[in-house]
Amino acid sequence: MQNIENVRHSLSHLLAAAVLKKFPKAKFGIGPVIENGFYYDFELPRQITNEDLKKLESEMRKFIKESLAFSQKKISIAEAKKLFKDQPYKLELIKDLSKTEKTVSIYKTAGVFTDLCKGGHVKNTKEINADGFKLEKTAGAYWRGDEKNPMLTRIYGLAFATKKELDEYVTREEEAKKRDHRKLGKELDLFIFSDIVGKGLPLLTPKGTVIRKELEKFVLEEETKRGYQHVVTPPLAKVVLYKKSGHYPYYKETMYPVMKIDDEELILRPMTCPHHFVLYSAKPRSYKELPLRIAEISPQFRYEKSGELSGLTKVRMFCLADAHIFCTKKQTESEIKNVLDLIDYANGIFGLKKGADYRYRLSLGDRKDTKKYYKDDKEWDIAENALRKVLKDAKAPFFEAENEAAFYGPKIDVQMKKVNGQEETAFTVQYDFVMPKRFNLTYKDSNSEDKEVVVIHRSSIGAFERTMALLIEHYAGAFPLWLAPVQVAVLPVSDKHVPYAKTVIKTLEEHGIRTELPEANETLGKRIRTAELMKIPLIVVVGDKEAGDKSVNVRERGKKDTQTIPLTKFAEETSKRATERK
Amino acid sequence: MQNIENVRHSLSHLLAAAVLKKFPKAKFGIGPVIENGFYYDFELPRQITNEDLKKLESEMRKFIKESLAFSQKKISIAEAKKLFKDQPYKLELIKDLSKTEKTVSIYKTAGVFTDLCKGGHVKNTKEINADGFKLEKTAGAYWRGDEKNPMLTRIYGLAFATKKELDEYVTREEEAKKRDHRKLGKELDLFIFSDIVGKGLPLLTPKGTVIRKELEKFVLEEETKRGYQHVVTPPLAKVVLYKKSGHYPYYKETMYPVMKIDDEELILRPMTCPHHFVLYSAKPRSYKELPLRIAEISPQFRYEKSGELSGLTKVRMFCLADAHIFCTKKQTESEIKNVLDLIDYANGIFGLKKGADYRYRLSLGDRKDTKKYYKDDKEWDIAENALRKVLKDAKAPFFEAENEAAFYGPKIDVQMKKVNGQEETAFTVQYDFVMPKRFNLTYKDSNSEDKEVVVIHRSSIGAFERTMALLIEHYAGAFPLWLAPVQVAVLPVSDKHVPYAKTVIKTLEEHGIRTELPEANETLGKRIRTAELMKIPLIVVVGDKEAGDKSVNVRERGKKDTQTIPLTKFAEETSKRATERK
Repeated sequence: MQNIENVRHSLSHLLAAAVLKKFPKAKFGIGPVIENGFYYDFELPRQITNEDLKKLESEMRKFIKESLAFSQKKISIAEAKKLFKDQPYKLELIKDLSKTEKTVSIYKTAGVFTDLCKGGHVKNTKEINADGFKLEKTAGAYWRGDEKNPMLTRIYGLAFATKKELDEYVTREEEAKKRDHRKLGKELDLFIFSDIVGKGLPLLTPKGTVIRKELEKFVLEEETKRGYQHVVTPPLAKVVLYKKSGHYPYYKETMYPVMKIDDEELILRPMTCPHHFVLYSAKPRSYKELPLRIAEISPQFRYEKSGELSGLTKVRMFCLADAHIFCTKKQTESEIKNVLDLIDYANGIFGLKKGADYRYRLSLGDRKDTKKYYKDDKEWDIAENALRKVLKDAKAPFFEAENEAAFYGPKIDVQMKKVNGQEETAFTVQYDFVMPKRFNLTYKDSNSEDKEVVVIHRSSIGAFERTMALLIEHYAGAFPLWLAPVQVAVLPVSDKHVPYAKTVIKTLEEHGIRTELPEANETLGKRIRTAELMKIPLIVVVGDKEAGDKSVNVRERGKKDTQTIPLTKFAEETSKRATERK
Repeated sequence: MQNIENVRHSLSHLLAAAVLKKFPKAKFGIGPVIENGFYYDFELPRQITNEDLKKLESEMRKFIKESLAFSQKKISIAEAKKLFKDQPYKLELIKDLSKTEKTVSIYKTAGVFTDLCKGGHVKNTKEINADGFKLEKTAGAYWRGDEKNPMLTRIYGLAFATKKELDEYVTREEEAKKRDHRKLGKELDLFIFSDIVGKGLPLLTPKGTVIRKELEKFVLEEETKRGYQHVVTPPLAKVVLYKKSGHYPYYKETMYPVMKIDDEELILRPMTCPHHFVLYSAKPRSYKELPLRIAEISPQFRYEKSGELSGLTKVRMFCLADAHIFCTKKQTESEIKNVLDLIDYANGIFGLKKGADYRYRLSLGDRKDTKKYYKDDKEWDIAENALRKVLKDAKAPFFEAENEAAFYGPKIDVQMKKVNGQEETAFTVQYDFVMPKRFNLTYKDSNSEDKEVVVIHRSSIGAFERTMALLIEHYAGAFPLWLAPVQVAVLPVSDKHVPYAKTVIKTLEEHGIRTELPEANETLGKRIRTAELMKIPLIVVVGDKEAGDKSVNVRERGKKDTQTIPLTKFAEETSKRATERK
């Protein structure tokens, strides 16, 4: 099996060869391998069209069929300067290389192109699957990424081992693009960003807020059922709090600037833990109170580089469904098990399947790295074994990752698969044996002796912003009934049915159902289509028959057939479904 | 009727006379009138005891009975220096006066005391009601409030026209002290403050959070019923947002420091309005959407001087039940009327009576003050008349106050009477014709022409922190069922009834009722008393009889007699009462 990186790299040279053939005076930048393909930067006499891309692609296929050999050669700096004398960008690279090197490497693609290049490549173009690649798009790119330099034309290509893989990738990307929460967020009027408010700071519209509040209600209800007690703490504190916790050196780069007020240095919080520790230690605690599960819907602030901000996924302020469980060492395993149960339950409500849509990562420390991790080998062993045991006992799908722990202990990461197939850490469950020492978090045991607690840091559904982004993409905007901003659209057949439509609305709202009555100045068909585009779960049509017998004609989203039901029965059933989150 | 200020001032001189008699070497500071009484600062040879206060008080009464005359005299600076040669604090005052004055005023109380003093006083001590005053307490006070100066002894006195008024004041103060939310907050475990978190930043405990979340739920439910749409916006923004709104010059002294992030200057928000304006103008609006009521449970930050911070009443971060109504000029009156209805409804739920517990203040602008108020006489007239008309039509108890408006328009203040009898502004309803211009807040009218909206700024229950403080004091901690952190305490008669008690707890929790099962290691009587001290609304006792017939023996808070009810009936009724907020 050919190394796909070498195939991609070789394709970038073939692209350059095709460009050279078409534009003999083209100047060449660089042509590296990237995720899923490659690109090459050129200075060209004119803009590149889609037509050009197709021609370049077929030229590249011709080269592949000609079974051209790739060969490497080392030449002196002087030779290189001579060889690339008409290529200013290559000369610049050679000049840089000459500071440390005496020779440079070049690669020849027999008869068609020679590039300044370290490799690696295929030996012969026949190793490349001519159906496994395509030229994707063009974009402007400053030479060496510096806006003071000339703007070059970058041509991107996708490349895989087989056509099947390429097609799958393209399909997945198209689907991901359609489901992109930034796009759907706009179309469905869920959130906005504003230049005058600031980067990475979303504003949720009324519709987006319905989803947010439903998620909050779900978290509060479910956590309360499971013995959590909620608190409200301020989203800022004195810097000394984060020095005491030891977070400061690890987090200061991603914290907001300090605010001086009188003699206090305040800072917006990047995590909730120290506030909860302060609450825990505000009074003496007994073993009878443990496990004590303190939860908060907690606003937090982190500085993310502006280039990394992305919709609701990467923001500068987020709100975490956070909690800290204070327990005895003996209680840790059952508490962690309970946390995983809650996570599985919540994911289940969202229709996310364990193993398929998400799995767990056991993130371990490194006993040798005493700078990154608190030094206490015995405690690390206990903690890692406890987490591993819970995952194994629960037959949870998981894998282990070295050197991914928090500085205060190992953790279980919830690895969520996104629509584009990429996996990312949604949130975590952490075992902490360090903070209890720093904050003197103790309890009196049954012999009235002081003992240290273990702290389990955990989330139930993660940050609301990120979860909303995930769910928008997961459902492609077609939210289940309980989350849908508008649950029922009520459409009168004509103007004369508006009064009955209003009765329907009133009855539904009295049952706590969110409704919409679009204006009847468009055809019924068009109004149905608009409601479908807005992905409203239930569309109700009312005409003479329905007004006559106090019924509604109901169409479920995605289904063709409709059903006529008595109004009160429909209201009761819909309300029940929403309450049960089905 | 004697001017009470003159009585209070004269009493401070009589206090000084009594001190002089008891401590002939005492040095005298100043003795002004304050709210409800007076004080005088002395340098004394020893600490003052309660015994001393009683003796000084009876000495003062003797002076009053002696019908001593007060008389004023102007003397030269030189004479004054001679007269007060043994009084260093008086000399310091004379020195200051000499910078601008040639003479100073002195007051003699015939035969007993002479003070450097401008007046006013009674003519004769017989004008003073000897039963209308009492010496209240002592405290240390730096001379002229500067900690570099000597610490003097301040003696405080209360003084009223009659003994009845004095007694009423003392009783009210004692009651207020008992109900002080800072004291009850601690006793009932509702919130804490922490040095390491920061000044004016409360942390709500699980019990305090129950109250907070119930209030939030109430606000969300009631506002939704009344056609408000909720949003979630970030509690910070770029400084330019507040420059655009025009808030910045008026509020910058009470805003947190600016945080620089990359090229942005961010600041924590002191109000929500500009964020809501950004949301309003994110898309074109039609008259069909108006009135548009945008509400938020909105965190806000204001710098308050550390000396002014007080429990939950004056904090550095609070969360306002905020909203902005965007409407046409024609809709303003009915919208303001609806807002007052909501406020009356919410206050009614809290058992606050209009007229007795709160009233309205119509806060007007000043057409001449163009620095403090936006200049547009016509709009001010329209706005003030609209607010006045609504108050009059609603027969609301209100009074008018000049020069108390916001810079962008007049407002109706909700004036709440506190337990100590003082009135304070709880929150406001504002008519705004300025921001729509600044943010270009328009809509298309039925002729597709652009029109400017009017904005009504309003709260429904004010800031949650302040409301909690008010309610703690209003209820003296005995919260109604729906707000009580623990709604039912379940007390087994003895250990053998614990299993049934747990069944009771389970049944109640399934009905969404918040319960507590105190440990049965104390006598039933003692456990009942503890539950009463914690002001739990319902105490349930279960013994053989109750376990036998699946019932509970219920005692309502504040009532002596108990009642035996089937468990399921009790659970259903209690749940219904809580849901109905009764």
